[in-house]
Amino acid sequence: MCGIFGVRGNPQAAELVHLGLYSLQHRGQESSGIVTVDDAGRAHSVRAMGLVSEGLAESEMPELTGSVGIGHTRYSTAGSSVIANAQPVVASVRGGAVALAHNGNLTNATELRRELEDTGAIFSSTMDSEVIVHRIARSTAERPELRLAEALTGVEGAYSLLVLIGDTLLAARDPRGWRPLVMGRLGDSIVFGSESCALDIIGAQPEREVEPGEIVVVDREGVRTGARLEASESRRCVFEYVYFARPDSRVFGGSVDRARRSLGRRLAKEHPAPNADLVFSVPDSSNSAALGFAEESGLPYELALIRNHYVGRTFIQPTQGARDAKVRVKYNAVREVLDGKRVVMVDDSIVRGTTTRGLVAMVRAAGAKEVHMRVSSAPVTGPCYYGIDTPTREELIAANLTIPQIAEHLGVDSLGYLSLDGMLQSVPDGPHGFCHACFSGDYPTAPPTDPDKLRAGCGC
Amino acid sequence: MCGIFGVRGNPQAAELVHLGLYSLQHRGQESSGIVTVDDAGRAHSVRAMGLVSEGLAESEMPELTGSVGIGHTRYSTAGSSVIANAQPVVASVRGGAVALAHNGNLTNATELRRELEDTGAIFSSTMDSEVIVHRIARSTAERPELRLAEALTGVEGAYSLLVLIGDTLLAARDPRGWRPLVMGRLGDSIVFGSESCALDIIGAQPEREVEPGEIVVVDREGVRTGARLEASESRRCVFEYVYFARPDSRVFGGSVDRARRSLGRRLAKEHPAPNADLVFSVPDSSNSAALGFAEESGLPYELALIRNHYVGRTFIQPTQGARDAKVRVKYNAVREVLDGKRVVMVDDSIVRGTTTRGLVAMVRAAGAKEVHMRVSSAPVTGPCYYGIDTPTREELIAANLTIPQIAEHLGVDSLGYLSLDGMLQSVPDGPHGFCHACFSGDYPTAPPTDPDKLRAGCGC
Amino acid sequence: MCGIFGVRGNPQAAELVHLGLYSLQHRGQESSGIVTVDDAGRAHSVRAMGLVSEGLAESEMPELTGSVGIGHTRYSTAGSSVIANAQPVVASVRGGAVALAHNGNLTNATELRRELEDTGAIFSSTMDSEVIVHRIARSTAERPELRLAEALTGVEGAYSLLVLIGDTLLAARDPRGWRPLVMGRLGDSIVFGSESCALDIIGAQPEREVEPGEIVVVDREGVRTGARLEASESRRCVFEYVYFARPDSRVFGGSVDRARRSLGRRLAKEHPAPNADLVFSVPDSSNSAALGFAEESGLPYELALIRNHYVGRTFIQPTQGARDAKVRVKYNAVREVLDGKRVVMVDDSIVRGTTTRGLVAMVRAAGAKEVHMRVSSAPVTGPCYYGIDTPTREELIAANLTIPQIAEHLGVDSLGYLSLDGMLQSVPDGPHGFCHACFSGDYPTAPPTDPDKLRAGCGC
Amino acid sequence: MCGIFGVRGNPQAAELVHLGLYSLQHRGQESSGIVTVDDAGRAHSVRAMGLVSEGLAESEMPELTGSVGIGHTRYSTAGSSVIANAQPVVASVRGGAVALAHNGNLTNATELRRELEDTGAIFSSTMDSEVIVHRIARSTAERPELRLAEALTGVEGAYSLLVLIGDTLLAARDPRGWRPLVMGRLGDSIVFGSESCALDIIGAQPEREVEPGEIVVVDREGVRTGARLEASESRRCVFEYVYFARPDSRVFGGSVDRARRSLGRRLAKEHPAPNADLVFSVPDSSNSAALGFAEESGLPYELALIRNHYVGRTFIQPTQGARDAKVRVKYNAVREVLDGKRVVMVDDSIVRGTTTRGLVAMVRAAGAKEVHMRVSSAPVTGPCYYGIDTPTREELIAANLTIPQIAEHLGVDSLGYLSLDGMLQSVPDGPHGFCHACFSGDYPTAPPTDPDKLRAGCGC
Repeated sequence: MCGIFGVRGNPQAAELVHLGLYSLQHRGQESSGIVTVDDAGRAHSVRAMGLVSEGLAESEMPELTGSVGIGHTRYSTAGSSVIANAQPVVASVRGGAVALAHNGNLTNATELRRELEDTGAIFSSTMDSEVIVHRIARSTAERPELRLAEALTGVEGAYSLLVLIGDTLLAARDPRGWRPLVMGRLGDSIVFGSESCALDIIGAQPEREVEPGEIVVVDREGVRTGARLEASESRRCVFEYVYFARPDSRVFGGSVDRARRSLGRRLAKEHPAPNADLVFSVPDSSNSAALGFAEESGLPYELALIRNHYVGRTFIQPTQGARDAKVRVKYNAVREVLDGKRVVMVDDSIVRGTTTRGLVAMVRAAGAKEVHMRVSSAPVTGPCYYGIDTPTREELIAANLTIPQIAEHLGVDSLGYLSLDGMLQSVPDGPHGFCHACFSGDYPTAPPTDPDKLRAGCGC
Repeated sequence: MCGIFGVRGNPQAAELVHLGLYSLQHRGQESSGIVTVDDAGRAHSVRAMGLVSEGLAESEMPELTGSVGIGHTRYSTAGSSVIANAQPVVASVRGGAVALAHNGNLTNATELRRELEDTGAIFSSTMDSEVIVHRIARSTAERPELRLAEALTGVEGAYSLLVLIGDTLLAARDPRGWRPLVMGRLGDSIVFGSESCALDIIGAQPEREVEPGEIVVVDREGVRTGARLEASESRRCVFEYVYFARPDSRVFGGSVDRARRSLGRRLAKEHPAPNADLVFSVPDSSNSAALGFAEESGLPYELALIRNHYVGRTFIQPTQGARDAKVRVKYNAVREVLDGKRVVMVDDSIVRGTTTRGLVAMVRAAGAKEVHMRVSSAPVTGPCYYGIDTPTREELIAANLTIPQIAEHLGVDSLGYLSLDGMLQSVPDGPHGFCHACFSGDYPTAPPTDPDKLRAGCGC
Repeated sequence: MCGIFGVRGNPQAAELVHLGLYSLQHRGQESSGIVTVDDAGRAHSVRAMGLVSEGLAESEMPELTGSVGIGHTRYSTAGSSVIANAQPVVASVRGGAVALAHNGNLTNATELRRELEDTGAIFSSTMDSEVIVHRIARSTAERPELRLAEALTGVEGAYSLLVLIGDTLLAARDPRGWRPLVMGRLGDSIVFGSESCALDIIGAQPEREVEPGEIVVVDREGVRTGARLEASESRRCVFEYVYFARPDSRVFGGSVDRARRSLGRRLAKEHPAPNADLVFSVPDSSNSAALGFAEESGLPYELALIRNHYVGRTFIQPTQGARDAKVRVKYNAVREVLDGKRVVMVDDSIVRGTTTRGLVAMVRAAGAKEVHMRVSSAPVTGPCYYGIDTPTREELIAANLTIPQIAEHLGVDSLGYLSLDGMLQSVPDGPHGFCHACFSGDYPTAPPTDPDKLRAGCGC
Repeated sequence: MCGIFGVRGNPQAAELVHLGLYSLQHRGQESSGIVTVDDAGRAHSVRAMGLVSEGLAESEMPELTGSVGIGHTRYSTAGSSVIANAQPVVASVRGGAVALAHNGNLTNATELRRELEDTGAIFSSTMDSEVIVHRIARSTAERPELRLAEALTGVEGAYSLLVLIGDTLLAARDPRGWRPLVMGRLGDSIVFGSESCALDIIGAQPEREVEPGEIVVVDREGVRTGARLEASESRRCVFEYVYFARPDSRVFGGSVDRARRSLGRRLAKEHPAPNADLVFSVPDSSNSAALGFAEESGLPYELALIRNHYVGRTFIQPTQGARDAKVRVKYNAVREVLDGKRVVMVDDSIVRGTTTRGLVAMVRAAGAKEVHMRVSSAPVTGPCYYGIDTPTREELIAANLTIPQIAEHLGVDSLGYLSLDGMLQSVPDGPHGFCHACFSGDYPTAPPTDPDKLRAGCGC
């Protein structure tokens, strides 16, 4: 997954992008970058591995001159963690500089790349995103928005894009609108961010989502819809509401916090735990859902798990051989809350089940008498080809075990997943127009011909 | 403030200390260090600026051989942020290596240092802790516990200590017991940590607090009370319960989470907000207190502020000149929760008031109609000389303004601080035996003769 | 300027390239890089700013798997000192990976780049070398050597190249042969290096120069001439003999040491200094020439200037405002040698004259009575467009002052430059077939249309 | 070995020390440091591993305020390469700051340290130098020069010292004067350096050596001899002339270049090589001696070995298993000079013989018909206890083999060492008053009781 941010019309463009990326850090911690274009059309860029606060020094921002800029934070995926795959992609093409920041995954990237290579293109990275830059370079259209529209025609899959062609800033979303992209204003400047929290941090006013299939242009003449791609049925990613986006954000026009509260309430209706003493969340992403569960069920909401936010991203070797050593570095249980209690533990999703299993053991070790696991989404049974780094089917616990088997594996007294219907009816503007392929197997596109390569070197 | 951790009797001593420091990171983020002593009596050490995850590479741990070790995380204080002031202090003295990790502040350090310098001692740092090492070196006692006891006689102020004299591990607390220090076991190993959460992370069982004035010895013969310093009245720091310790910890024998819940409930009784619609906390340290307030008042508990945990410790220049730019980097408000509501905002304490003021503005900008500020401790009116890095009296808002003036300054509709009595009656084992000098002005010792120097170069 | 090195047929390819680059460090200290291709056709690369010993850790070499590899060291030029301009260039194209290391400068790069951009190419750097990679990618030929030959047709200027197309290693020199490129063997492996010293360091046997216009192929079938570019008159760079190459190297089939000795002897004939007491060199590049001067003149050779080899590449601020502070950091004079003496100071060339002026002042301050400057090359009156980073004409002292004016400016008692003829007749295989454009103004090609851009972002 | 530099009376003290250390880098490359004291008596310091150009950033110099400062470069010795052993040692003692930079080795450090530890001293390093700081701290004298004199009474062995006590600068040499220490002036400032080249780099005028047993004081009242230690017979280190000092330096009042020329001439008389064709040096330390040999013998002086100055200090793994791989990274032979010739190879000394053996093989591989090795010092048969990091007797080739055996081991046709007498008669102000213990076994002091500990953690 990735976060993208852009601004045009502000002399402090780089500083604003820098701040915006801070608030999108949860969407990607592997690498980050910023590109600006100055009045003379020169691109200035910085890219680095690691967190924004580690890699992108504030002291470098003044060197990124220009009043238009875009930035990107990239998710950590196995095997491709190299600086060559940091974004924004920046290149010099006919007419000047092009830069691109991409959130999502293309499903026909392999084919598009082969086609480009066969006609003489050279690639500097293994990212699917680079094919879009080549297609922009090859477009014969003159107006930037038409170059981008031409470049995107025939590109399949998920993309929310921020593109600089010279000093023109373009924002685009694929026709199905998998990934969010919010537009707003800060004084006279136009601002874009993956989520509204990125607008909040700089004090900008959110205005609207870039629409699926829309290309928004921001240039000297102002801001306008520059082109529309061929329409398709909307397929917003429901997982953004369930887990990915920040609770203080609005995405797809809806509040993430409200979505999760609603998911939690629905979960309490579908899978009550009538004899439980209390409910708690796996912090922090499940807090809203757990509060919703508490509200609906009438059970008291407690803080039973504490998360250590100082843990770095480096892997910590378990020293004691204990199964749950890794979990203990990140979480701790509060015995005074749990001891002797029948508890409901709410999590937003279960992917491999490893962490959940460790947490359940921790909760029991702290004295819980009964553990009732409640999950505010449906079982994840398939990989995502549209930008979320889910593992292969072999590693997805719900693709391989029945729910009773999962309950046994996790060591819980009961286990309830929210139903697919319940989930879709709980999110804003549901139940239609969402992608739920990883839950339902209902993939809106043909799967990529080479999903492994895609995962290893994706744009997201 | 600082966190300390130690273990004896485990071949993976360095790895365990490393893990323990992770869980004490909230007590100090400026620098950290680990010292081990091997079977041949050789000390091995590493110290670095920054977080444990940044400065102390796991790959270095195997070089820190030996089955006994201590570690330290140090709080960031202005002006003295240099590697020479990282702990543990390590030195070679008569008989071999000595290492020391100190949490607290000595109040007669200036006098003790002058006395030592006058008789030929040389100092390598500006830390008060270094005087204890010199006094150990000068002791003529043979048994390590007696050397430490002799060294501590005449030392005033706050100290929880872990000391290595050769391969003997010593743990000590000053007679008033300002700072916590928990003892436990992991198999055959004896473990010490500032808080019980540090024992949890390695899977150790907490046993008891080191008692005020007690010196615990761990050597080849086992673990025992080695000496007792002259008794004094207990003065445990109430601020550990209010703010400093982690909610999943037990300190001074009580649960931090339960203490905060109790403080929140008491706050709701003392300063109800009968017409409010909801209550929320300033995350994360106030979560428990806010939940207690909600419980007592019957108001719904909401998640209205979201904290960005990816923010580095580097100062972020406000780019827009806005008063609340710094606050926005760290927090964001959830409009859907706040819009049109009369809200109770619970914080554990107000020091300078700067952050609070920014948060109130943020909460109002997100639509809150009324903001009722509730604080789960009494007004902070004086500096701490015992280890907490409070600013000078001039900067303490409650030392300079009346409560109505503070309310006006913060921009709140009402403001209620918990009373001193209420605070002391709410914490475990209260109301007696606590230090509340920063709230009450009732300092248990003469203030240091040179408090500024102390603040600049303190051991903590 | 740059140094290039390549090897095929050795399981320790990366280590050998690493060693080879050490010995070519004098040709470029700004950045360096290594690319290998493994048996599966995957490229592995590392590039870093600074010296080989600083940037390319030996510990990384084992990750650069494969038995074929190339490397590059890049000269420091003002303004373009960025990692994006480090070589080898590596890209993925139709059929697999391509990597390229280039020594020299193309004179029609701007035109070639525009042509490529007009047909949709995207550029990742400002290096002229990148156009060759694009042209390889666009070639429709199948055999690597023909792809390279097709790519080079129409490319003007100076290039000695090492190219990997998949696991085929190609070596090429432009038809005029400006830059050297030596071929040799190490057991069954074929090796290439800019100078023979790079073969010596790995214990390889030099065999011959790659010929001007020749493309040598090394693949599974062995080594052979794969193609020849259209012939042109030879124009080997005489400055390689005068200054650039190492004295222990053979380049263009001749010994650099012998060339410089011969230049020095000729200089003594053309510009004797009959009343002088001794001769000394500006170390280290002028040592051979000074020895030649001593030999021919019968004057004793002395060590009057000592060079400090520990000086980093960072600029040292003069602290005393003295004109010669910068010179003093790098050189010191030996008073015991110079005091009261009439001396001949031999340097290989004078570019701006700044260092020379400082050295003359230093030599006089150490007591020299008379300073007779002798230069073992002709006056440099024009820029080089073929790979040497000479400054603009405005900064070249000999382009702006007469020889008597230069002598006065330098503060010498007499000044003698070797004549153009004398220079060309002294080097091996002279006087014909050399480029002496920077001395004579006789440029073999049209100058580049945009020499400034070329200088800022050249491949070399 | 180490280099030391100090200045008093200059507002740019740190910058001058920084420059001075550049020119003393050959005396130690392991670590370096600078300490200044400002007008308020506060010490400012920086210490770092590696070269001055790597570790001590020029940008840090302005933070080292004050008009008095000292600096140190430290030699690389096995096992103790840690930042805690970087100098200057800096400490806070009665009366303020003390800093100390030491060149030499104390022979009774172990005893002095034990004595100090027994009376309560704590040690932060393993350096012998730290004992002197403790003794200064314990002195009850008031005047700085008397404190230092008292501290040095009873200290045995070699020390050239620069000491700051507050803002008083003190320079001292042990009574035997093992290590050099030059004093000079730069305008009104007084300057000290291990060698005169350090004065040259800042443009200072050398005045005289600090005399053996003299303590020079520089304070507000000016410069004067402050005290004299008990006299002893002079024992200047002859190895400073033979190898260690820079040829452009004056040490012990004599010119290093002239000393080496004289050693070379004497060598030619003692061990002529009548049938040889040419003579060359192992660069750079043997250049002067080889020139002296050429001068006396009438043989031509040639440049047959080229040294690569870009080689880092990191160990390079030989990749080909060849015995001489390490040598080849640092040196290369010039075939055109050597091929078919009978050659004299001059080196200043042979310690282990490993490098020499590799060079001889390289010279033969380049075609030399006969190799006649000539050494401009006597055979090294014992370790140095006074500051030079010679290996143990077991590793010294001349302590274990006869001269014919050494010749055979090195693979030379003849081998001639300069005689002890010849050596002592060739150096300035010889033959008396020099230490030649490593050549003759005539140690001026009792050897240290614990030489291994000394070597591992010496002050030099």
